[in-house]
Amino acid sequence: MKLYDLELSGNCYKVRLLAALAGIPLDIVAVDFLVGEHKKPPLIELNPWGEIPILVDGDVVLRDSQAILVYLAARYAGEAWLPRDAAGLATVMQWLSTAANEIQNGPGAARLVDKFGCALDKADTLRRAARILPLIDAHLARHDWLALGHPTVADCAVMPYVALAPEGGVSLADFPNIQQWIARIKALPGFVPMPGI
Amino acid sequence: MKLYDLELSGNCYKVRLLAALAGIPLDIVAVDFLVGEHKKPPLIELNPWGEIPILVDGDVVLRDSQAILVYLAARYAGEAWLPRDAAGLATVMQWLSTAANEIQNGPGAARLVDKFGCALDKADTLRRAARILPLIDAHLARHDWLALGHPTVADCAVMPYVALAPEGGVSLADFPNIQQWIARIKALPGFVPMPGI
Repeated sequence: MKLYDLELSGNCYKVRLLAALAGIPLDIVAVDFLVGEHKKPPLIELNPWGEIPILVDGDVVLRDSQAILVYLAARYAGEAWLPRDAAGLATVMQWLSTAANEIQNGPGAARLVDKFGCALDKADTLRRAARILPLIDAHLARHDWLALGHPTVADCAVMPYVALAPEGGVSLADFPNIQQWIARIKALPGFVPMPGI
Repeated sequence: MKLYDLELSGNCYKVRLLAALAGIPLDIVAVDFLVGEHKKPPLIELNPWGEIPILVDGDVVLRDSQAILVYLAARYAGEAWLPRDAAGLATVMQWLSTAANEIQNGPGAARLVDKFGCALDKADTLRRAARILPLIDAHLARHDWLALGHPTVADCAVMPYVALAPEGGVSLADFPNIQQWIARIKALPGFVPMPGI
């Protein structure tokens, strides 16, 4: 099973993190991001969005880090990381949307500006980060894990760009519950880091 | 089962659409958006994000339109609208991320500016729309439905703000495959419209 990967991408790290925590072997294929390998054949044929990560598992080809997390958990990790009951599945899904929207376009995009020089509206990314981080911190004041009473793909999807927020000039100093949650994830058996986390 | 709803919200319409197509009864509770009812108790206690839709089904309380679609499909609509196998579930999930991110922040946000006067960067919303709509049109040149060989929650999640794009000054004239896909959804038994669709 191949993961087309970039070490510095938080979206790719989401997948590596779940795979490590759940004991799923991945064949990591490093993508040469700087020359735009993901924008050209053959990768653009695997993912017309021109983005990584991309997962290829036999006939299954998937774009989008959240979708890849769902696939790996449902196929290889049983109910532990992704419940199958409607309420549990939807509770996790709330946080996958948060990862795809508020986190990606908030702290994730702020980091793209500062670390990679992307031409995005930095003030907008900071406004979005300033809205979502207090909501997550307040949620974590009452819960050890985002979605359920144990870690799920929700935590794998949201944590990376929250933990990397300081690389976009977004401090986590005012969010003690977020800091403790990141520490809980780091203490899980099998945890793997990435640069900046 | 209560849906806290706003008629003009595409996110609320996603839920009403699936419920109508799948024959799921909803008790619609109109929210007074203009006075900010969704930002105050009791609604802010149901969804600290301060957004609608919110679904309440007994003990289950859900924010996020994508999560609500997943819940309704998994709980009340069987496999027809949301497959349970890993590859099918993840294929749908790709489009739920697209709905939450590219569509919401592209054509969805462009409409918020034009129709509701929201203080967002209109040029940014148009750039995002100009990127995602051709990708979706090209996908629909080869597929009748977004995720699988039949309609799923992916179509319910993506269609509303695509079909409403002209209300944000985004024309669909260059996207014939999108237009035909919208027509296919409108022809489904049980389809319900919303203002603008």
